[in-house]
Amino acid sequence: MGAAAPILVSGFEPFGGEVVNASWEAVKLLPDEMDGHPVQKLLLPVEFGRSGDLIEEAVAELRPSVVIAVGEAGGRAHLSVERVAVNLMRARIADNAGFQPDGEAIIPEGPDAYLATLPVDACVAAARADGVPADASETAGLYVCNQLMYRILHAIACNNMHIRAGFIHVPHLPCQVLEKQGKPFCPADISARGIAAALRAALC
Amino acid sequence: MGAAAPILVSGFEPFGGEVVNASWEAVKLLPDEMDGHPVQKLLLPVEFGRSGDLIEEAVAELRPSVVIAVGEAGGRAHLSVERVAVNLMRARIADNAGFQPDGEAIIPEGPDAYLATLPVDACVAAARADGVPADASETAGLYVCNQLMYRILHAIACNNMHIRAGFIHVPHLPCQVLEKQGKPFCPADISARGIAAALRAALC
Amino acid sequence: MGAAAPILVSGFEPFGGEVVNASWEAVKLLPDEMDGHPVQKLLLPVEFGRSGDLIEEAVAELRPSVVIAVGEAGGRAHLSVERVAVNLMRARIADNAGFQPDGEAIIPEGPDAYLATLPVDACVAAARADGVPADASETAGLYVCNQLMYRILHAIACNNMHIRAGFIHVPHLPCQVLEKQGKPFCPADISARGIAAALRAALC
Amino acid sequence: MGAAAPILVSGFEPFGGEVVNASWEAVKLLPDEMDGHPVQKLLLPVEFGRSGDLIEEAVAELRPSVVIAVGEAGGRAHLSVERVAVNLMRARIADNAGFQPDGEAIIPEGPDAYLATLPVDACVAAARADGVPADASETAGLYVCNQLMYRILHAIACNNMHIRAGFIHVPHLPCQVLEKQGKPFCPADISARGIAAALRAALC
Repeated sequence: MGAAAPILVSGFEPFGGEVVNASWEAVKLLPDEMDGHPVQKLLLPVEFGRSGDLIEEAVAELRPSVVIAVGEAGGRAHLSVERVAVNLMRARIADNAGFQPDGEAIIPEGPDAYLATLPVDACVAAARADGVPADASETAGLYVCNQLMYRILHAIACNNMHIRAGFIHVPHLPCQVLEKQGKPFCPADISARGIAAALRAALC
Repeated sequence: MGAAAPILVSGFEPFGGEVVNASWEAVKLLPDEMDGHPVQKLLLPVEFGRSGDLIEEAVAELRPSVVIAVGEAGGRAHLSVERVAVNLMRARIADNAGFQPDGEAIIPEGPDAYLATLPVDACVAAARADGVPADASETAGLYVCNQLMYRILHAIACNNMHIRAGFIHVPHLPCQVLEKQGKPFCPADISARGIAAALRAALC
Repeated sequence: MGAAAPILVSGFEPFGGEVVNASWEAVKLLPDEMDGHPVQKLLLPVEFGRSGDLIEEAVAELRPSVVIAVGEAGGRAHLSVERVAVNLMRARIADNAGFQPDGEAIIPEGPDAYLATLPVDACVAAARADGVPADASETAGLYVCNQLMYRILHAIACNNMHIRAGFIHVPHLPCQVLEKQGKPFCPADISARGIAAALRAALC
Repeated sequence: MGAAAPILVSGFEPFGGEVVNASWEAVKLLPDEMDGHPVQKLLLPVEFGRSGDLIEEAVAELRPSVVIAVGEAGGRAHLSVERVAVNLMRARIADNAGFQPDGEAIIPEGPDAYLATLPVDACVAAARADGVPADASETAGLYVCNQLMYRILHAIACNNMHIRAGFIHVPHLPCQVLEKQGKPFCPADISARGIAAALRAALC
């Protein structure tokens, strides 16, 4: 079914001193086609602004039926499907371009927040059904991940597109926590399986 | 090297309403021979007393060079190599034989505690070197796991045997925490890799 | 200064099997006047809908300059000043009227979320300056607390009122966690001091 | 009853960059007499060796009926009454004299561990009965606190003294975690109330 609309999935480059980013390691492992839909994988910089610009361009060009952006959430134990993106940027550390916002809006005239257009609870249930510990989450933080989710949903809303879109956070990889006592992790193949299950739930 | 002394590794049966025990799922995946040493795998009941009797018998019969008992520690995120076994039994829930001790000694005339004869820090380092998040732990709890570790070390001490012995706790499996928000996990193959690395460190 | 606009602070009745609610225990300890502003304390039922109706009525009647609703967040260690209320209701346990929503909107035609009109970061800084561990929080959950915060901010927005409004979560009291191993707590007088500091920051 | 045997309670000086130590802040608040027993308060340096020497001297001189050493356990939420001291020293950071042991024994010829001679569970129950969240703990770590507990119990055992002795860890003070998101705390007066309850339980 070459005619089926593509699926767009993004992951991030490393940041914060890490040499790897769990989100891209998982996204890389996704198949190139799911249920006849080509899967387009997009690697994004950990930068406010530019990451949003790049995914907006990809959405405009590809006209995907589903968009899931994936990010890394160190400290979380389960895959988490985000419910809401907030129009606010705050950063404990500067992004990879050196920008460190302190409470600015993402889109000054935008609404305070957007709810994901993904079927969040169905995505969580699908991941669990495939053996992947998963939860819905009520906050994507205020860093680049939240900004990316907001930008996607804002673009879709402004252009009146009918796209199921949202954001999934994945835990650190084992190699990122080897000596970090008590810090949870999830291997990339398990995170990938959870993302794939969520994508399938979103295609239904 | 059929003449090399065997390695003894034990795991536990399910308990506490679970249908699986992460320790046995990991132990099952170990190879049957390591560096010429046959690996003997022993499945133990989650019972005070009987689990200790069974491993004592196995130690007496096999005369292994290394003994590692493995147990499941729900809530822990990393493989943990235990440093110490305490002469005390307390149970929040009864064991699989219905026994629920409330402060009794394991061996009334025994010493207050034993330190593992495993090279604990070398075992931790070996697991990490093989990509498995691991830590040393200062407490094996006061349940059946601690009792088993104490029984092994007590038997070795009383019989003046030169055996490197200790205990490793492994996290829950993914299937045990699917809906338990925020609860860490480790797949069985990663836990098995960590146990194998610890065994190799103990053989050196 | 009887002419100064009042401050409205609400707390909740007990719920979830508890005999006390940390929020009301703290609110009760607030002074009856702050910087010349009378402090009006409102005890609310843990009920979706009715708690919102009652605070809307109080806001309409009192025309306060500042409104802070306070709730209890078991498991949190610090006072948390909420940034955002989401137009969504989900409940793990039924509210005190037996209602257990499963994803409904609070106001079907309302926006997806509201940001607090309190100066959140100034409130956090003020609490800390008074010796109270405090953080900003990006989620007030999806239970009655979030609903109450949303209702307040929606009423203020719809009526074009200039009121600084928001929500503060307080930890459990010591008496609520006596035997709950590892669960954090905060005495009512310390939570009250933090709420008072936040109110003062909001009056500036 | 000036003739009643004294109670000995120790606390520690600050360490690790802190300007205060929660243990001494709590110990300072204890009464100078309890049930007719004079309460002797001893401030100890955070130093392996010297802290042990000083408390041994105090025990030899005072012949107390009860000894409780108190230390600070950052990250713990409740008062914890320790069950066991292990004959092992390991330090993530050097002590206040610059010593950083890496696995040495406290007393090379000493037993692997000592169980507290305090009635641990009665002490926990007494603290809870007085409104103080408290737990028993199976590990006092491997730093100066554990060493101090071991030294006390070793001296008592070697000298065949009949003294109820043990160790209590108290959480950080509020002022130590003001900006440390999610870190639990306990005010000094509540920790002091819990220590006093434990002392009374030990006197029975």
